[in-house]
Amino acid sequence: MIDLYTAATPNGWKASVALEEMGLPYEVIALDLMKGEQKKPAFLKINPNGRIPAIVDRDNGDFAVFESGAILVYLAEKTGMLMPTDAKGRSRVLQWLMFQMGGVGPMMGQANVFFRYMPEKIEVAIQRYQNESRRLLTVLDTQLAENEFLAGDYSIADIANWCWARTHAWSGIDITGLDHLKRWLDQIRAREAVDRGVKVPGELEPAQVLEAARNMVQR
Amino acid sequence: MIDLYTAATPNGWKASVALEEMGLPYEVIALDLMKGEQKKPAFLKINPNGRIPAIVDRDNGDFAVFESGAILVYLAEKTGMLMPTDAKGRSRVLQWLMFQMGGVGPMMGQANVFFRYMPEKIEVAIQRYQNESRRLLTVLDTQLAENEFLAGDYSIADIANWCWARTHAWSGIDITGLDHLKRWLDQIRAREAVDRGVKVPGELEPAQVLEAARNMVQR
Repeated sequence: MIDLYTAATPNGWKASVALEEMGLPYEVIALDLMKGEQKKPAFLKINPNGRIPAIVDRDNGDFAVFESGAILVYLAEKTGMLMPTDAKGRSRVLQWLMFQMGGVGPMMGQANVFFRYMPEKIEVAIQRYQNESRRLLTVLDTQLAENEFLAGDYSIADIANWCWARTHAWSGIDITGLDHLKRWLDQIRAREAVDRGVKVPGELEPAQVLEAARNMVQR
Repeated sequence: MIDLYTAATPNGWKASVALEEMGLPYEVIALDLMKGEQKKPAFLKINPNGRIPAIVDRDNGDFAVFESGAILVYLAEKTGMLMPTDAKGRSRVLQWLMFQMGGVGPMMGQANVFFRYMPEKIEVAIQRYQNESRRLLTVLDTQLAENEFLAGDYSIADIANWCWARTHAWSGIDITGLDHLKRWLDQIRAREAVDRGVKVPGELEPAQVLEAARNMVQR
Protein backbone atom coordinates (compact mmCIF):
# COMPACT_ATOMS: atom_id res chain seq x y z
CA MET A 1 0.00 0.00 0.00
CA ILE A 2 1.15 3.51 -0.85
CA ASP A 3 0.07 6.62 1.05
CA LEU A 4 -0.50 9.53 -1.33
CA TYR A 5 -0.52 13.04 0.13
CA THR A 6 -2.15 15.20 -2.48
CA ALA A 7 -4.54 17.95 -3.55
CA ALA A 8 -6.41 18.76 -6.77
CA THR A 9 -3.55 20.37 -8.71
CA PRO A 10 -1.59 19.39 -11.86
CA ASN A 11 1.32 18.12 -9.75
CA GLY A 12 -1.05 16.13 -7.55
CA TRP A 13 -2.75 14.55 -10.57
CA LYS A 14 0.59 13.34 -11.93
CA ALA A 15 0.91 10.99 -8.96
CA SER A 16 -2.71 9.79 -8.89
CA VAL A 17 -2.84 9.23 -12.66
CA ALA A 18 0.40 7.21 -12.52
CA LEU A 19 -0.86 5.13 -9.58
CA GLU A 20 -4.08 4.42 -11.46
CA GLU A 21 -2.26 3.53 -14.68
CA MET A 22 0.00 1.14 -12.80
CA GLY A 23 -2.82 -0.42 -10.83
CA LEU A 24 -1.05 0.11 -7.53
CA PRO A 25 -3.20 0.15 -4.40
CA TYR A 26 -2.99 3.51 -2.62
CA GLU A 27 -4.63 5.49 0.11
CA VAL A 28 -5.36 9.17 -0.46
CA ILE A 29 -4.57 11.71 2.26
CA ALA A 30 -6.00 14.98 0.96
CA LEU A 31 -4.15 17.99 2.37
CA ASP A 32 -6.06 21.24 2.78
CA LEU A 33 -3.67 23.75 1.23
CA MET A 34 -5.85 26.65 2.39
CA LYS A 35 -5.26 25.59 5.99
CA GLY A 36 -1.53 25.16 5.33
CA GLU A 37 -1.57 21.45 6.18
CA GLN A 38 1.38 20.99 3.80
CA LYS A 39 3.55 23.12 6.11
CA LYS A 40 2.91 21.17 9.32
CA PRO A 41 5.87 19.44 10.99
CA ALA A 42 4.52 15.91 10.48
CA PHE A 43 4.29 16.47 6.73
CA LEU A 44 7.66 18.26 6.53
CA LYS A 45 9.21 14.98 7.66
CA ILE A 46 7.84 13.45 4.46
CA ASN A 47 8.54 16.44 2.23
CA PRO A 48 10.94 19.04 3.65
CA ASN A 49 9.74 21.43 0.92
CA GLY A 50 6.17 21.44 2.25
CA ARG A 51 4.48 20.79 -1.08
CA ILE A 52 2.17 18.17 -2.53
CA PRO A 53 2.35 15.52 -3.84
CA ALA A 54 4.39 13.15 -1.69
CA ILE A 55 4.14 9.42 -1.19
CA VAL A 56 5.11 6.96 1.51
CA ASP A 57 5.63 3.39 0.31
CA ARG A 58 4.52 1.27 3.25
CA ASP A 59 5.73 -1.88 1.46
CA ASN A 60 9.27 -0.50 1.22
CA GLY A 61 10.10 0.42 4.82
CA ASP A 62 7.88 3.52 4.78
CA PHE A 63 10.12 5.08 2.16
CA ALA A 64 9.09 8.68 1.50
CA VAL A 65 9.35 10.33 -1.92
CA PHE A 66 8.72 14.02 -2.64
CA GLU A 67 8.76 16.02 -5.90
CA SER A 68 6.22 14.82 -8.47
CA GLY A 69 8.93 14.02 -11.02
CA ALA A 70 10.80 11.81 -8.56
CA ILE A 71 7.54 10.08 -7.59
CA LEU A 72 6.86 9.21 -11.23
CA VAL A 73 10.35 7.72 -11.68
CA TYR A 74 10.11 5.82 -8.38
CA LEU A 75 6.76 4.28 -9.31
CA ALA A 76 7.93 3.44 -12.85
CA GLU A 77 11.00 1.68 -11.47
CA LYS A 78 8.98 -0.10 -8.77
CA THR A 79 6.50 -1.52 -11.29
CA GLY A 80 8.61 -1.70 -14.46
CA MET A 81 5.83 0.23 -16.19
CA LEU A 82 5.55 3.46 -18.22
CA MET A 83 9.30 3.91 -18.66
CA PRO A 84 11.65 1.84 -20.87
CA THR A 85 14.47 -0.06 -19.19
CA ASP A 86 17.07 0.38 -21.94
CA ALA A 87 19.40 3.34 -21.40
CA LYS A 88 18.39 5.39 -24.44
CA GLY A 89 14.66 4.88 -24.08
CA ARG A 90 14.87 5.69 -20.39
CA SER A 91 16.86 8.83 -21.07
CA ARG A 92 14.37 10.05 -23.71
CA VAL A 93 11.57 9.73 -21.14
CA LEU A 94 13.65 11.56 -18.52
CA GLN A 95 14.43 14.37 -20.99
CA TRP A 96 10.75 15.08 -21.60
CA LEU A 97 9.97 14.65 -17.91
CA MET A 98 12.65 17.22 -17.04
CA PHE A 99 11.26 19.49 -19.77
CA GLN A 100 7.98 19.49 -17.85
CA MET A 101 9.57 19.81 -14.41
CA GLY A 102 11.81 22.73 -15.34
CA GLY A 103 9.70 24.38 -18.04
CA VAL A 104 6.01 23.66 -18.57
CA GLY A 105 5.16 23.35 -14.86
CA PRO A 106 6.98 26.42 -13.49
CA MET A 107 6.02 28.67 -16.42
CA MET A 108 2.32 27.71 -16.47
CA GLY A 109 2.37 28.03 -12.68
CA GLN A 110 3.67 31.59 -12.93
CA ALA A 111 1.13 32.38 -15.66
CA ASN A 112 -1.57 31.29 -13.21
CA VAL A 113 -0.18 33.50 -10.46
CA PHE A 114 -0.11 36.69 -12.53
CA PHE A 115 -3.10 36.02 -14.80
CA ARG A 116 -5.45 34.52 -12.29
CA TYR A 117 -4.51 34.93 -8.62
CA MET A 118 -2.78 38.25 -8.01
CA PRO A 119 -5.11 41.11 -7.14
CA GLU A 120 -3.11 43.56 -9.28
CA LYS A 121 -2.86 42.89 -13.02
CA ILE A 122 0.76 43.26 -14.12
CA GLU A 123 0.52 43.05 -17.88
CA VAL A 124 4.24 42.58 -18.60
CA ALA A 125 4.37 39.57 -16.25
CA ILE A 126 1.13 38.06 -17.58
CA GLN A 127 2.41 38.35 -21.14
CA ARG A 128 5.81 36.96 -20.25
CA TYR A 129 4.48 33.76 -18.73
CA GLN A 130 1.65 33.19 -21.19
CA ASN A 131 4.05 33.66 -24.12
CA GLU A 132 6.68 31.36 -22.64
CA SER A 133 4.03 28.73 -21.84
CA ARG A 134 2.66 28.92 -25.36
CA ARG A 135 6.22 28.50 -26.67
CA LEU A 136 6.74 25.40 -24.53
CA LEU A 137 3.39 23.92 -25.61
CA THR A 138 4.49 24.54 -29.21
CA VAL A 139 7.64 22.49 -28.55
CA LEU A 140 5.36 19.66 -27.38
CA ASP A 141 3.16 20.11 -30.47
CA THR A 142 6.19 19.83 -32.77
CA GLN A 143 7.33 16.66 -31.04
CA LEU A 144 3.81 15.21 -31.24
CA ALA A 145 3.52 15.99 -34.97
CA GLU A 146 5.70 13.01 -35.77
CA ASN A 147 5.27 10.93 -32.64
CA GLU A 148 2.15 9.46 -31.08
CA PHE A 149 3.61 10.10 -27.62
CA LEU A 150 6.48 12.26 -26.38
CA ALA A 151 9.14 9.59 -25.94
CA GLY A 152 8.34 6.26 -27.57
CA ASP A 153 5.37 4.47 -25.98
CA TYR A 154 2.98 6.20 -23.58
CA SER A 155 5.07 6.98 -20.51
CA ILE A 156 5.43 9.02 -17.33
CA ALA A 157 6.71 11.85 -19.57
CA ASP A 158 3.26 12.05 -21.19
CA ILE A 159 1.52 11.94 -17.81
CA ALA A 160 3.67 14.76 -16.42
CA ASN A 161 3.26 17.09 -19.40
CA TRP A 162 -0.41 16.21 -19.94
CA CYS A 163 -1.42 17.05 -16.36
CA TRP A 164 -0.17 20.60 -16.92
CA ALA A 165 -0.98 21.10 -20.62
CA ARG A 166 -4.64 20.19 -20.07
CA THR A 167 -5.04 23.25 -17.83
CA HIS A 168 -4.02 25.72 -20.58
CA ALA A 169 -7.35 27.57 -20.46
CA TRP A 170 -6.99 28.18 -16.73
CA SER A 171 -3.63 29.86 -17.46
CA GLY A 172 -5.19 31.91 -20.27
CA ILE A 173 -3.07 30.24 -22.95
CA ASP A 174 -4.56 29.92 -26.41
CA ILE A 175 -3.65 26.63 -28.11
CA THR A 176 -5.18 27.50 -31.48
CA GLY A 177 -3.17 25.86 -34.22
CA LEU A 178 -1.51 23.30 -31.93
CA ASP A 179 -3.47 20.44 -33.46
CA HIS A 180 -1.05 17.67 -32.57
CA LEU A 181 -1.12 18.79 -28.94
CA LYS A 182 -4.93 18.77 -29.03
CA ARG A 183 -5.00 15.26 -30.50
CA TRP A 184 -2.69 14.05 -27.71
CA LEU A 185 -4.66 15.89 -25.00
CA ASP A 186 -7.86 14.16 -26.12
CA GLN A 187 -6.23 10.78 -26.60
CA ILE A 188 -4.84 10.67 -23.06
CA ARG A 189 -8.01 12.13 -21.53
CA ALA A 190 -9.93 9.16 -22.96
CA ARG A 191 -7.94 6.63 -20.91
CA GLU A 192 -9.96 5.13 -18.06
CA ALA A 193 -7.09 5.22 -15.57
CA VAL A 194 -6.52 8.90 -16.37
CA ASP A 195 -10.19 9.64 -15.81
CA ARG A 196 -9.96 8.06 -12.36
CA GLY A 197 -6.65 9.79 -11.59
CA VAL A 198 -7.79 13.35 -12.28
CA LYS A 199 -10.71 12.90 -9.87
CA VAL A 200 -8.29 12.42 -6.94
CA PRO A 201 -8.68 13.70 -4.26
CA GLY A 202 -12.03 14.93 -5.55
CA GLU A 203 -13.41 17.35 -8.08
CA LEU A 204 -13.34 20.94 -6.93
CA GLU A 205 -15.65 23.72 -7.98
CA PRO A 206 -13.77 26.49 -9.83
CA ALA A 207 -14.54 28.95 -7.02
CA GLN A 208 -12.86 26.64 -4.51
CA VAL A 209 -9.81 26.27 -6.72
CA LEU A 210 -9.52 30.03 -7.08
CA GLU A 211 -9.88 30.63 -3.37
CA ALA A 212 -7.29 27.97 -2.55
CA ALA A 213 -4.87 29.35 -5.11
CA ARG A 214 -5.22 32.95 -3.94
CA ASN A 215 -4.58 31.77 -0.44
CA MET A 216 -1.40 29.99 -1.53
CA VAL A 217 -0.04 33.07 -3.29
CA GLN A 218 -0.41 35.06 -0.10
CA ARG A 219 1.42 32.52 2.00
CA MET B 1 34.06 11.75 -26.72
CA ILE B 2 31.08 13.88 -25.73
CA ASP B 3 30.09 17.11 -27.48
CA LEU B 4 28.88 19.69 -24.96
CA TYR B 5 26.80 22.60 -26.26
CA THR B 6 26.89 25.18 -23.53
CA ALA B 7 27.21 28.75 -22.30
CA ALA B 8 28.29 30.36 -19.02
CA THR B 9 25.06 29.90 -17.05
CA PRO B 10 24.09 27.81 -13.99
CA ASN B 11 22.46 25.16 -16.20
CA GLY B 12 25.51 25.04 -18.43
CA TRP B 13 27.86 24.64 -15.46
CA LYS B 14 25.89 21.64 -14.21
CA ALA B 15 26.98 19.69 -17.29
CA SER B 16 30.61 20.86 -17.36
CA VAL B 17 31.10 20.32 -13.62
CA ALA B 18 29.68 16.78 -13.89
CA LEU B 19 31.87 15.96 -16.91
CA GLU B 20 34.93 17.22 -15.02
CA GLU B 21 34.02 15.29 -11.86
CA MET B 22 33.58 12.11 -13.88
CA GLY B 23 36.77 12.60 -15.87
CA LEU B 24 34.95 12.12 -19.17
CA PRO B 25 36.63 13.55 -22.28
CA TYR B 26 34.46 16.23 -23.91
CA GLU B 27 34.57 18.93 -26.52
CA VAL B 28 33.00 22.28 -25.78
CA ILE B 29 30.84 24.00 -28.39
CA ALA B 30 30.06 27.42 -26.92
CA LEU B 31 26.79 28.83 -28.21
CA ASP B 32 26.41 32.59 -28.44
CA LEU B 33 23.02 33.14 -26.82
CA MET B 34 23.06 36.80 -27.82
CA LYS B 35 23.15 35.77 -31.46
CA GLY B 36 20.40 33.20 -30.89
CA GLU B 37 22.59 30.27 -31.89
CA GLN B 38 20.53 28.05 -29.59
CA LYS B 39 17.49 28.59 -31.84
CA LYS B 40 19.12 27.54 -35.13
CA PRO B 41 17.72 24.47 -36.92
CA ALA B 42 20.89 22.39 -36.53
CA PHE B 43 20.80 22.82 -32.76
CA LEU B 44 17.03 22.27 -32.53
CA LYS B 45 17.67 18.76 -33.84
CA ILE B 46 19.74 18.18 -30.69
CA ASN B 47 17.44 20.10 -28.33
CA PRO B 48 13.95 20.84 -29.68
CA ASN B 49 13.55 23.35 -26.82
CA GLY B 50 16.42 25.52 -28.10
CA ARG B 51 18.22 25.85 -24.78
CA ILE B 52 21.65 25.03 -23.42
CA PRO B 53 23.10 22.72 -22.23
CA ALA B 54 22.80 19.71 -24.50
CA ILE B 55 25.20 16.86 -25.17
CA VAL B 56 25.82 14.43 -27.99
CA ASP B 57 27.52 11.19 -26.96
CA ARG B 58 29.62 10.27 -29.96
CA ASP B 59 30.52 6.94 -28.34
CA ASN B 60 26.86 5.95 -28.10
CA GLY B 61 25.59 6.36 -31.66
CA ASP B 62 25.55 10.17 -31.45
CA PHE B 63 22.85 9.98 -28.81
CA ALA B 64 21.59 13.47 -27.95
CA VAL B 65 20.45 14.50 -24.48
CA PHE B 66 18.80 17.82 -23.59
CA GLU B 67 17.64 19.25 -20.25
CA SER B 68 20.42 19.68 -17.69
CA GLY B 69 18.75 17.32 -15.21
CA ALA B 70 18.51 14.54 -17.79
CA ILE B 71 22.14 15.11 -18.81
CA LEU B 72 23.26 14.64 -15.19
CA VAL B 73 21.33 11.37 -14.86
CA TYR B 74 22.60 10.12 -18.24
CA LEU B 75 26.22 10.82 -17.32
CA ALA B 76 25.81 9.30 -13.85
CA GLU B 77 24.38 6.13 -15.36
CA LYS B 78 27.00 6.01 -18.10
CA THR B 79 29.87 6.20 -15.61
CA GLY B 80 28.32 4.68 -12.49
CA MET B 81 29.46 7.80 -10.63
CA LEU B 82 27.81 10.48 -8.46
CA MET B 83 24.52 8.59 -8.04
CA PRO B 84 23.88 5.46 -5.97
CA THR B 85 22.68 2.35 -7.76
CA ASP B 86 20.37 1.04 -5.03
CA ALA B 87 16.73 2.07 -5.48
CA LYS B 88 16.39 4.18 -2.34
CA GLY B 89 19.70 5.99 -2.67
CA ARG B 90 19.00 6.69 -6.32
CA SER B 91 15.55 8.02 -5.52
CA ARG B 92 16.89 10.35 -2.81
CA VAL B 93 19.30 11.86 -5.34
CA LEU B 94 16.50 12.23 -7.91
CA GLN B 95 14.25 13.93 -5.33
CA TRP B 96 16.82 16.63 -4.62
CA LEU B 97 17.65 16.90 -8.32
CA MET B 98 13.95 17.45 -9.12
CA PHE B 99 13.78 19.98 -6.27
CA GLN B 100 16.40 22.00 -8.14
CA MET B 101 14.87 21.48 -11.58
CA GLY B 102 11.35 22.46 -10.54
CA GLY B 103 12.13 24.92 -7.75
CA VAL B 104 15.54 26.48 -7.20
CA GLY B 105 16.34 26.90 -10.91
CA PRO B 106 13.06 28.37 -12.17
CA MET B 107 12.55 30.62 -9.12
CA MET B 108 16.10 32.02 -9.07
CA GLY B 109 15.80 32.42 -12.83
CA GLN B 110 12.66 34.52 -12.44
CA ALA B 111 14.30 36.52 -9.64
CA ASN B 112 17.09 37.34 -12.11
CA VAL B 113 14.62 38.43 -14.78
CA PHE B 114 12.72 40.87 -12.56
CA PHE B 115 15.57 41.98 -10.29
CA ARG B 116 18.31 42.27 -12.85
CA TYR B 117 17.26 42.22 -16.49
CA MET B 118 13.89 43.91 -16.97
CA PRO B 119 14.08 47.62 -17.68
CA GLU B 120 11.05 48.33 -15.45
CA LYS B 121 11.31 47.49 -11.75
CA ILE B 122 8.17 45.61 -10.69
CA GLU B 123 8.54 45.41 -6.94
CA VAL B 124 5.84 42.79 -6.29
CA ALA B 125 7.46 40.39 -8.76
CA ILE B 126 10.99 41.02 -7.47
CA GLN B 127 9.84 40.35 -3.92
CA ARG B 128 7.88 37.27 -4.91
CA TYR B 129 10.83 35.53 -6.55
CA GLN B 130 13.49 36.63 -4.09
CA ASN B 131 11.32 35.46 -1.19
CA GLU B 132 10.53 32.12 -2.80
CA SER B 133 14.20 31.60 -3.69
CA ARG B 134 15.26 32.39 -0.13
CA ARG B 135 12.64 29.91 1.12
CA LEU B 136 14.02 27.21 -1.18
CA LEU B 137 17.61 27.92 -0.12
CA THR B 138 16.41 27.62 3.48
CA VAL B 139 15.06 24.14 2.70
CA LEU B 140 18.55 23.26 1.43
CA ASP B 141 20.11 24.76 4.57
CA THR B 142 17.87 22.66 6.80
CA GLN B 143 18.79 19.50 4.92
CA LEU B 144 22.49 20.40 5.11
CA ALA B 145 22.31 21.03 8.86
CA GLU B 146 22.30 17.30 9.51
CA ASN B 147 23.84 16.02 6.30
CA GLU B 148 27.21 16.76 4.72
CA PHE B 149 25.61 16.56 1.27
CA LEU B 150 21.99 16.67 0.09
CA ALA B 151 21.43 12.97 -0.51
CA GLY B 152 24.06 10.68 0.99
CA ASP B 153 27.47 11.05 -0.65
CA TYR B 154 28.37 13.96 -2.94
CA SER B 155 26.15 13.50 -6.00
CA ILE B 156 24.62 15.06 -9.10
CA ALA B 157 21.95 16.51 -6.75
CA ASP B 158 24.65 18.61 -5.08
CA ILE B 159 26.06 19.70 -8.43
CA ALA B 160 22.64 20.79 -9.72
CA ASN B 161 21.65 22.76 -6.62
CA TRP B 162 25.13 24.18 -6.07
CA CYS B 163 25.41 25.63 -9.60
CA TRP B 164 22.31 27.73 -8.90
CA ALA B 165 22.73 28.45 -5.17
CA ARG B 166 26.21 29.90 -5.71
CA THR B 167 24.70 32.70 -7.81
CA HIS B 168 22.45 33.95 -4.96
CA ALA B 169 24.06 37.41 -4.94
CA TRP B 170 23.35 37.87 -8.65
CA SER B 171 19.66 37.20 -7.89
CA GLY B 172 19.77 39.65 -4.96
CA ILE B 173 19.06 36.94 -2.40
CA ASP B 174 20.52 37.41 1.05
CA ILE B 175 21.75 34.15 2.60
CA THR B 176 22.52 35.61 6.01
CA GLY B 177 21.90 32.95 8.64
CA LEU B 178 22.03 30.02 6.23
CA ASP B 179 25.32 28.80 7.66
CA HIS B 180 24.98 25.17 6.59
CA LEU B 181 24.32 26.28 3.04
CA LYS B 182 27.42 28.51 3.17
CA ARG B 183 29.57 25.66 4.49
CA TRP B 184 28.38 23.45 1.62
CA LEU B 185 28.84 26.21 -0.97
CA ASP B 186 32.46 26.65 0.11
CA GLN B 187 33.13 22.93 0.40
CA ILE B 188 32.02 22.19 -3.14
CA ARG B 189 33.70 25.29 -4.57
CA ALA B 190 37.02 23.97 -3.25
CA ARG B 191 36.87 20.85 -5.43
CA GLU B 192 39.34 20.96 -8.31
CA ALA B 193 36.94 19.46 -10.83
CA VAL B 194 34.33 22.06 -9.87
CA ASP B 195 36.84 24.84 -10.35
CA ARG B 196 37.53 23.59 -13.87
CA GLY B 197 33.84 23.05 -14.62
CA VAL B 198 32.68 26.57 -13.75
CA LYS B 199 35.26 28.02 -16.13
CA VAL B 200 33.54 26.35 -19.11
CA PRO B 201 33.05 27.73 -21.72
CA GLY B 202 35.08 30.64 -20.36
CA GLU B 203 34.81 33.27 -17.69
CA LEU B 204 32.60 36.18 -18.68
CA GLU B 205 32.84 39.74 -17.49
CA PRO B 206 29.74 40.80 -15.53
CA ALA B 207 28.86 43.34 -18.25
CA GLN B 208 28.83 40.60 -20.87
CA VAL B 209 26.61 38.42 -18.71
CA LEU B 210 24.17 41.26 -18.19
CA GLU B 211 24.04 42.11 -21.87
CA ALA B 212 23.49 38.48 -22.84
CA ALA B 213 20.79 38.05 -20.24
CA ARG B 214 18.91 41.22 -21.24
CA ASN B 215 19.03 40.04 -24.79
CA MET B 216 17.53 36.68 -23.82
CA VAL B 217 14.66 38.30 -21.94
CA GLN B 218 13.72 40.26 -25.04
CA ARG B 219 13.69 37.22 -27.24
